[in-house]
Amino acid sequence: MAEERIVTLGEIMLRLSPTGAQRILQAEHFEAVYGGAEANVAISLACFGHSVRFVTKLPANTLGDAAIRHLRRHGVDTDHTVRGGRRLGLYFMEPGQSIRPAQVLYDRQYSAIAEAAPEDFDWNAIFEGAGLFHTCGITLAISSNARAVAMEAVREAKKRGVAVSFDFNYRQQLWSVSEAREAMERFLPFVDLLFAGVRDAVEIMGISATTASDPEGQTREALTPLLQQYGIQHVSSTFRREESATRHHLSGFTLTREGVLHRDEGHTFDIVDRIGGGDAFAAGWLHGWLKGWKPEKSLSFALAASALKHTITGDANIATEQEVFNLMNRKDGFSIQR
Amino acid sequence: MAEERIVTLGEIMLRLSPTGAQRILQAEHFEAVYGGAEANVAISLACFGHSVRFVTKLPANTLGDAAIRHLRRHGVDTDHTVRGGRRLGLYFMEPGQSIRPAQVLYDRQYSAIAEAAPEDFDWNAIFEGAGLFHTCGITLAISSNARAVAMEAVREAKKRGVAVSFDFNYRQQLWSVSEAREAMERFLPFVDLLFAGVRDAVEIMGISATTASDPEGQTREALTPLLQQYGIQHVSSTFRREESATRHHLSGFTLTREGVLHRDEGHTFDIVDRIGGGDAFAAGWLHGWLKGWKPEKSLSFALAASALKHTITGDANIATEQEVFNLMNRKDGFSIQR
Amino acid sequence: MAEERIVTLGEIMLRLSPTGAQRILQAEHFEAVYGGAEANVAISLACFGHSVRFVTKLPANTLGDAAIRHLRRHGVDTDHTVRGGRRLGLYFMEPGQSIRPAQVLYDRQYSAIAEAAPEDFDWNAIFEGAGLFHTCGITLAISSNARAVAMEAVREAKKRGVAVSFDFNYRQQLWSVSEAREAMERFLPFVDLLFAGVRDAVEIMGISATTASDPEGQTREALTPLLQQYGIQHVSSTFRREESATRHHLSGFTLTREGVLHRDEGHTFDIVDRIGGGDAFAAGWLHGWLKGWKPEKSLSFALAASALKHTITGDANIATEQEVFNLMNRKDGFSIQR
Amino acid sequence: MAEERIVTLGEIMLRLSPTGAQRILQAEHFEAVYGGAEANVAISLACFGHSVRFVTKLPANTLGDAAIRHLRRHGVDTDHTVRGGRRLGLYFMEPGQSIRPAQVLYDRQYSAIAEAAPEDFDWNAIFEGAGLFHTCGITLAISSNARAVAMEAVREAKKRGVAVSFDFNYRQQLWSVSEAREAMERFLPFVDLLFAGVRDAVEIMGISATTASDPEGQTREALTPLLQQYGIQHVSSTFRREESATRHHLSGFTLTREGVLHRDEGHTFDIVDRIGGGDAFAAGWLHGWLKGWKPEKSLSFALAASALKHTITGDANIATEQEVFNLMNRKDGFSIQR
Amino acid sequence: MAEERIVTLGEIMLRLSPTGAQRILQAEHFEAVYGGAEANVAISLACFGHSVRFVTKLPANTLGDAAIRHLRRHGVDTDHTVRGGRRLGLYFMEPGQSIRPAQVLYDRQYSAIAEAAPEDFDWNAIFEGAGLFHTCGITLAISSNARAVAMEAVREAKKRGVAVSFDFNYRQQLWSVSEAREAMERFLPFVDLLFAGVRDAVEIMGISATTASDPEGQTREALTPLLQQYGIQHVSSTFRREESATRHHLSGFTLTREGVLHRDEGHTFDIVDRIGGGDAFAAGWLHGWLKGWKPEKSLSFALAASALKHTITGDANIATEQEVFNLMNRKDGFSIQR
Amino acid sequence: MAEERIVTLGEIMLRLSPTGAQRILQAEHFEAVYGGAEANVAISLACFGHSVRFVTKLPANTLGDAAIRHLRRHGVDTDHTVRGGRRLGLYFMEPGQSIRPAQVLYDRQYSAIAEAAPEDFDWNAIFEGAGLFHTCGITLAISSNARAVAMEAVREAKKRGVAVSFDFNYRQQLWSVSEAREAMERFLPFVDLLFAGVRDAVEIMGISATTASDPEGQTREALTPLLQQYGIQHVSSTFRREESATRHHLSGFTLTREGVLHRDEGHTFDIVDRIGGGDAFAAGWLHGWLKGWKPEKSLSFALAASALKHTITGDANIATEQEVFNLMNRKDGFSIQR
Repeated sequence: MAEERIVTLGEIMLRLSPTGAQRILQAEHFEAVYGGAEANVAISLACFGHSVRFVTKLPANTLGDAAIRHLRRHGVDTDHTVRGGRRLGLYFMEPGQSIRPAQVLYDRQYSAIAEAAPEDFDWNAIFEGAGLFHTCGITLAISSNARAVAMEAVREAKKRGVAVSFDFNYRQQLWSVSEAREAMERFLPFVDLLFAGVRDAVEIMGISATTASDPEGQTREALTPLLQQYGIQHVSSTFRREESATRHHLSGFTLTREGVLHRDEGHTFDIVDRIGGGDAFAAGWLHGWLKGWKPEKSLSFALAASALKHTITGDANIATEQEVFNLMNRKDGFSIQR
Repeated sequence: MAEERIVTLGEIMLRLSPTGAQRILQAEHFEAVYGGAEANVAISLACFGHSVRFVTKLPANTLGDAAIRHLRRHGVDTDHTVRGGRRLGLYFMEPGQSIRPAQVLYDRQYSAIAEAAPEDFDWNAIFEGAGLFHTCGITLAISSNARAVAMEAVREAKKRGVAVSFDFNYRQQLWSVSEAREAMERFLPFVDLLFAGVRDAVEIMGISATTASDPEGQTREALTPLLQQYGIQHVSSTFRREESATRHHLSGFTLTREGVLHRDEGHTFDIVDRIGGGDAFAAGWLHGWLKGWKPEKSLSFALAASALKHTITGDANIATEQEVFNLMNRKDGFSIQR
Repeated sequence: MAEERIVTLGEIMLRLSPTGAQRILQAEHFEAVYGGAEANVAISLACFGHSVRFVTKLPANTLGDAAIRHLRRHGVDTDHTVRGGRRLGLYFMEPGQSIRPAQVLYDRQYSAIAEAAPEDFDWNAIFEGAGLFHTCGITLAISSNARAVAMEAVREAKKRGVAVSFDFNYRQQLWSVSEAREAMERFLPFVDLLFAGVRDAVEIMGISATTASDPEGQTREALTPLLQQYGIQHVSSTFRREESATRHHLSGFTLTREGVLHRDEGHTFDIVDRIGGGDAFAAGWLHGWLKGWKPEKSLSFALAASALKHTITGDANIATEQEVFNLMNRKDGFSIQR
Repeated sequence: MAEERIVTLGEIMLRLSPTGAQRILQAEHFEAVYGGAEANVAISLACFGHSVRFVTKLPANTLGDAAIRHLRRHGVDTDHTVRGGRRLGLYFMEPGQSIRPAQVLYDRQYSAIAEAAPEDFDWNAIFEGAGLFHTCGITLAISSNARAVAMEAVREAKKRGVAVSFDFNYRQQLWSVSEAREAMERFLPFVDLLFAGVRDAVEIMGISATTASDPEGQTREALTPLLQQYGIQHVSSTFRREESATRHHLSGFTLTREGVLHRDEGHTFDIVDRIGGGDAFAAGWLHGWLKGWKPEKSLSFALAASALKHTITGDANIATEQEVFNLMNRKDGFSIQR
Repeated sequence: MAEERIVTLGEIMLRLSPTGAQRILQAEHFEAVYGGAEANVAISLACFGHSVRFVTKLPANTLGDAAIRHLRRHGVDTDHTVRGGRRLGLYFMEPGQSIRPAQVLYDRQYSAIAEAAPEDFDWNAIFEGAGLFHTCGITLAISSNARAVAMEAVREAKKRGVAVSFDFNYRQQLWSVSEAREAMERFLPFVDLLFAGVRDAVEIMGISATTASDPEGQTREALTPLLQQYGIQHVSSTFRREESATRHHLSGFTLTREGVLHRDEGHTFDIVDRIGGGDAFAAGWLHGWLKGWKPEKSLSFALAASALKHTITGDANIATEQEVFNLMNRKDGFSIQR
Repeated sequence: MAEERIVTLGEIMLRLSPTGAQRILQAEHFEAVYGGAEANVAISLACFGHSVRFVTKLPANTLGDAAIRHLRRHGVDTDHTVRGGRRLGLYFMEPGQSIRPAQVLYDRQYSAIAEAAPEDFDWNAIFEGAGLFHTCGITLAISSNARAVAMEAVREAKKRGVAVSFDFNYRQQLWSVSEAREAMERFLPFVDLLFAGVRDAVEIMGISATTASDPEGQTREALTPLLQQYGIQHVSSTFRREESATRHHLSGFTLTREGVLHRDEGHTFDIVDRIGGGDAFAAGWLHGWLKGWKPEKSLSFALAASALKHTITGDANIATEQEVFNLMNRKDGFSIQR
């Protein structure tokens, strides 16, 4: 299946972050990167060697051109990105520093993809040669238009036998719990591979609070109902423990019909760039799935990929498969390589 | 009259420009400044020593806070800036380089001021102690809401005997000629001091093309009808000759009931920052008017102020009155001062 | 009392720090910020929403103008800052890195405020509407002239019933212990609210070494004599434990006539900018006092404010009251806010 | 023919330039861009909307990866770039400033392409769908290996009926006149479209010095022999007049069997980045040829493209066709576009 | 002996590192410093107040000039640096970040020193007034030419009674274990002071694996044979424990004929710049030896010097003796010094 | 005479300039370079290959260390720089931009050299091996102490038969015309080689205004009296014509007993860094004198050196003799050298 192309769909935005440790309030310079959940997944999978296409709508201006260049630079196909609409979504990101949390200020309303329509896209061309489709909850959240596009895309994918991957990615600044639940209930029947956690199941999908006291049991109780109800193959996610805004610990799980796998491989790290950690996990997990690895290996790889992402500037994990393996296997420890 | 406060009303935006000579397409860093036509006039007048208030609506977020800090830093009163709305307008500015023109990409739709209403403002408080009110055509152009706010403001100003200054500032990206003409026809009856050029009169206001072959004659023919029809005291503007995107020559005129004054004082200069040249002219001219100078002196001062602005980074002219005098009088030539 | 204006008096300097992790010895670029103990307190209180005036003397040059702009930017009134004198004080600050301590190289002799005289200031105008006056030991230390100004200021404050706050801030580079003691003995009789620690009491004021083995007992023994002798209402300070130059732990106390309050709320943090931690504590504590909070709450707020300051570049704490509350209450943990 | 793919072959290097106006001797920072004559032509043609492939050999390390990303970013196909060899060529470029000329310090010996062999490349795959092949004299100069690769490429191109474009690009740091002449004599028989000037013909190819006193006559005399001897369709080049290192004037010519076309359209400009001016001319001219324009229009377009390149940072012209038209037609003059 | 000059010989390269936390793959800017093992030792000894000469061969271009300026800046004599050859060696260094290891990409083949010959150097002039000579395994590794130069140098040093110091510095990217062993066996007979660890002895020199379970015993077993076989006075090295790529712990030992000294003085630190930690240790140890300190004190000083180096940007330790003492004695703790 | 060492004496300061085109008022970053008139002359002469010593007094702090490193970097001997005193002089330099003149804000009072005494210096050691001594009017101006040091130095130089060079360098911010005249009258009797212009002779030294209408005649009339009265060999200076703050034209003259030589070699240039243009002229002229060139050649060389300096960042001309020759001879025109 790794031979087939992966298609991801969503929004790519311009991210503006103050330089150094400055706050937005003080900033006279911003660092600019382009990113968005599904674009980040696309770039990471391309860096792992896959053939990947990202689909979106971008304004026909220089910012749209720059977003495309960012994707192409890392080897993502943008041939079916539609041009038009009013603006590129953007967001301001003030990085966290020690005990000061990062802050995200969205300015993404009225973006081209938020105002796109299903008819803007040529699904036949988009899905030609595709084996896997990926999108996430943010695309459902940004507008009813974008939601319609995503629903159409997933129907078109399913129609062609393309496997569907979906990441919950609930963002409280974008929609309410009830809106999210309703949209998810319509989307999940199409999903084969899900990225979601216990809180998503309980707080969004209304699964009753778990009674287990251990994470394994909680995971099983909260997510098995989703897996069963919607015919999902795997549900995976990270557990994130935050010692500070810039020092985290990651572990994770994969739930399959056979049960739940938990992995804590000691990934504690200082953070260079917090954005895209979940996307790197999803891309890592999908890489294993595409390679036909066992879930244990996919999960270990995904955790190392996600941990590594936090040390890389920009939204996307641009590490190679070998670099993720190095971290998994600590072959080189942390020594300088010379 | 210099003792009385000046009130300006309009939009202040975040301006993002690539660093160095880079294009937006290449940029991984943006320089951030805050600016807008009436805010720039306010800052320049504050730097000349006047008491100035800038009125707008800004979102209740950190970008709104930063815009206020920018104004306060240069001594502008922001006590009657209303907070609320969805977003801060912003624009991307790719500076020109030699034969490559500067480009402006507006992203200002749905800004707080574009969605403001006249009722948002406490006109009694705003105009307390005011002797002069200034706004410009951009504020009329950005939305019907903003236009309504500006119309209400000018009515409230007139009601209190406050003099009204207005700068045409036609921006083709924001509205059509016919929309502009209609709005101007409603606004101009309130105006005492106007900043507009021959092209504005002919292309926007529909004054018939001038028959004179000299600039003086053209100015007189094109603008006298406006002056007479709307009971305006003075109309002033610059003539800009562009040798390249980064080398300009400025001259200018003031038209009064007594006739037209032309001044060309040899201001040819290389450009550090093109934005705000017209605002610096208006502020310079208003400074002279507030000081009670003769139009000749006001015009000379305004031209030198505008020329100087082009050598200063950021939207606003932060030069002092003395620095403008130095350029007018070439007292120091261009020698290093040590 | 929060309705009344706060007046702080002291020196504001230009601070020059190498960029990145460079040493002064290597530096080809310096970051410039403006700061000084009482100016930092003023800015933090203005960011908490108070009406604050900072009083000093600044040279009539562009560096003086820039210092004023820095204060105004954050909402501090500078209308009664006197202009004149020879130079702006400045200091070079090499930030600490891990096991390498920060170093401060003062270059503040002969500054305008160091050569000011009490007659330079219009105390009636300065204290109009004031409810609280704050200064610190640095102002007493920089010169006999500055000391005379501070003494005059505190007498004028008292005369008008304005409460007086004072921070010991002993700097060994500026004066000797005996000079400091003599000056403090003359100043403390005017003080209502004091910021000082056990070492200040013992090493500067000559209180006999404490016999208690616990911090609470030491605090009580060392500082109660000062409180009683000088009729002070509250004495507060932080305890700072330094794991490295860039990782600290803060706890603190407030001593009142009712006894001593100790608080350790687990504030351990990596440091972005070490300067101004004590000033942020003082401003936080004064904010609580002005709000009429109980000492417990004021102390908790002050500790969180001080901790937060260490993650903010520049001398002053520009966090809002809400941001300090967030850290106190860990409502958001350290999660990214999106 | 514009439907067919363009293939260019040569070296792409890492270029390191001091920031600001610094000299290499002083530099503590270098700006990094990737470029090389044929890579620059490829990028410019891709930015004009063509399908372009760049062929080279790059080391299998992170610098090789970065060079590929640079090409892909701007839409150039790199699927047939071979990986292997020892190093990426690089060069240091100290930009000129006014009367101080730019300096280039090559460090390109032993690069992967300089040590490549014809057998490294799969010519069938490379030329699939190709209509035009372009390379230049630098590739012949860098090593005998690279020369063998270029000779094999041009033979393979001709075998498949692919048109051949060649730019003289003589670099005295790389080889002697006699070496160059020998290599050119072997290469020119394959060439359809040539970029070369009078000095190339006279000084390298040994055409006897021209007797004409006007540029047109000189061009005709010097280059007609080359055109006739080697069966070349067009020879084109620029005339460059240097007022200083950073202010140039460009005009140019195209020589066909019908005669010589001279164009001087007043392109005098200040220089942002001197590198790649000739490559931008070649790409502009080839764009016209691919579009089937008349030589006059192709030449005008090529001159405007080259002039515009000098205002753009980096080696390659990333302007669009529309932007070049704007300069040709001065539709917008040099006004800011807003 | 401290009165006599120290001579070090080796390669100095241009080091290029991405700015901020960027990867080489992303970098559009590189920070440039000059460094190399023996140059770093030379600079540190010069900063401790010694008279030091660095000997190498550098190309006669601006990069060679810049390398010399770097050495002179910190007080190292470069009068006997030979000019000529093809290029300056360089390397790209991607700094580690938390769990992501630093990576070094060498581009040093064909450098001037790698192609130098013993006859290039005037050994009489070089060793005039010298008391100590230092070089390291990297110089033996870079080429047979450089090895021949180093062998000649050490013979010339010995001939004049100059003490010889040598640092193993095995680099696997430069040569194989067997090549290294052969070269070391020829070089070690000249060595008086050696910097090498247990792994060097066992893995390179083929000393049989140690049986001891404690570090002290292992050190004694592994290195005593070297000490005895080659008549070496002292062998010293660090133990480095890596919590992450950017947090290390250092301890170390010195082995003499009297036995082994172990020191762990709790040096755990965050890393600003990883390069040159071993060179700083060697320089620190040699400083003590030159001062005639006991090995215990030299070892403590060397460990503190090495730890401090990790907080300093650039390859070399530019700390003063006093700053190293401060860290050894924690006189100032980590407090800011003001 | 070129074999003998050159000794220059004066002040070296830290210069702080805003980055980019910013004003001091706006600056959040300053570029730091070290410079001063005689230090600049010393560096330029060292870059031309001479043995040069710079003598001053510097504070025993890290800024003093950095100033010494700056001098040593470029090959200037600092062994007789005395350490002590209170502070390093510094100045803020706002670069000019087009029609906006550069501004210098001195902050050099109470510097170490301004408070030095003749007894601080060991003149025997300083002048050992010296053939030429150079200082300038700024050193006479900064304080009576510095003036005493300079007077003592020149007496000691003369005593040893060392030739004396002196540059008028009148700075109105430092002293009045009458103070300058008195000091010059005491200093000039020691001078062999003088750098001064017509204005210096007329406005400072009180030579009666010239009656000639041509520059040659004016030079002869104004400066011959100085030459005769004080037994000076040569008087040289530039004529500077300022088209703007950043575009100048330089010509110059040398007056000898044989008459006046005028040279205008068309040096018109855009300015990168205005500071040190006169020092570069003096160094260029002295280089010719030391080489034994005819005055014509020395003057041409000095003009080219001065012009070139304006294109180089920092206070000092770091160009080589060959680079100055290239500009004199326009051998390479302004072409890029590759």
